[in-house]
Amino acid sequence: METFEESHQRRLEVCITPALFPVYYQSKDCVVVVIDIFRATSAICTAFEHGVSSIIPVSTVSEARAYQAKGYIAAAERNGEIVDGFDIGNSPFHYMDPQIKGKDVVLTTTNGTKAIERAKAADHIIVGSFLNLSAIADYLDKQNKNVILLCAGWKDRFNLEDTLFAGAVVDKLKDHPIFTGLADSSLAALNLYQQAKPDINGFLANSSHRRRLARLDLEKDIEYCLQLDISKKVPTFRGNALIAD
Amino acid sequence: METFEESHQRRLEVCITPALFPVYYQSKDCVVVVIDIFRATSAICTAFEHGVSSIIPVSTVSEARAYQAKGYIAAAERNGEIVDGFDIGNSPFHYMDPQIKGKDVVLTTTNGTKAIERAKAADHIIVGSFLNLSAIADYLDKQNKNVILLCAGWKDRFNLEDTLFAGAVVDKLKDHPIFTGLADSSLAALNLYQQAKPDINGFLANSSHRRRLARLDLEKDIEYCLQLDISKKVPTFRGNALIAD
Repeated sequence: METFEESHQRRLEVCITPALFPVYYQSKDCVVVVIDIFRATSAICTAFEHGVSSIIPVSTVSEARAYQAKGYIAAAERNGEIVDGFDIGNSPFHYMDPQIKGKDVVLTTTNGTKAIERAKAADHIIVGSFLNLSAIADYLDKQNKNVILLCAGWKDRFNLEDTLFAGAVVDKLKDHPIFTGLADSSLAALNLYQQAKPDINGFLANSSHRRRLARLDLEKDIEYCLQLDISKKVPTFRGNALIAD
Repeated sequence: METFEESHQRRLEVCITPALFPVYYQSKDCVVVVIDIFRATSAICTAFEHGVSSIIPVSTVSEARAYQAKGYIAAAERNGEIVDGFDIGNSPFHYMDPQIKGKDVVLTTTNGTKAIERAKAADHIIVGSFLNLSAIADYLDKQNKNVILLCAGWKDRFNLEDTLFAGAVVDKLKDHPIFTGLADSSLAALNLYQQAKPDINGFLANSSHRRRLARLDLEKDIEYCLQLDISKKVPTFRGNALIAD
């Protein structure tokens, strides 16, 4: 903390759950990277890679239903499963369908869209996943802003996979001259990522969400979400929707 | 999470800042271990080892002054320094003075006493530090309760040394049959501790609070606080005060 203030350098901090966002968000001059590896932000990155026009994140299932009634493609997930009455949840594989190309999609999920909602206090929000890790790091590298890596977590609790991704971003930016003097949250995430790096899936074997998804038979999704750099797009929040230009 | 609920086992979770305590505290049937390694809980453990009768934690400096006016020994620290008008802060060395033996001491600190205040929602609160690590682990081992390892952090942010201590407790309890299926926060803390274990002071070299204390010339305090198992006492909150019986 004080090191940043004293040296006028930029902060690079990991906020491990949306519940702590107000603690970390202290100035408008920042970029917030929303992270929900399993699976909302991985699905969002996949959708843009497959040509979706925009994604409107909403907090509640009833908001998603209202858009659905107006003819939007609407997706809703709660507790890892597609909500009744919707065809799409938050599996990245749902977003490879050619029918979403050029469309506006409305999305609500257990943690990811809630994190985006919380982040709306900030002017500058982007969406990250392992799928666009290098694109995110390159993007942040070109900004001259404080960075908050906002982990969606699990119902306001700490979760391992989102923190690992935050550590991966720290790993890429740690030598950038404006970010010297890492916050403790960034040091911890970096440290965990450096251990996990050789085998992220193995490292996550005992994590709670990994176990939860394994019970739901979502191994294929997990493997997909842990791929590195298959997209160069950086989904950015503008108005009420994410776009990637 | 779900693993615990499904198997009716006990939860062993790390709450990385007091701001998240309401998220983790969900049933009265738990023990909360308050952790503020640099330096409040290390000082508290030291005080009991040196014969203090009780420690009354208070949230504000004005409360501490009110007790001081009534003749209590009062200690107050803010931002690492003794508050004007007090003789004692939160250095463990302040609590080795023979004059505190048998006395009731009132204490307010930047983070530690705030964490205790937050934990008061629970019926069962104890105080941990590296100085009484094994005593804490043995104590928890004998309870049949959920455990919340509550890190005081730094002004509601994540901090590294408190999380490392939480990881040290997880390391001691992880093979206890009632705690199988660790929460992600416990896995992360355990992992960080296992890396740090061979040289905790070295591991903390770049941490924010370590840098803050080094600037305040408190190296001696840091080394003292990182000693293992020099006390077998378990300070426990009863009524409005900590005691160790």
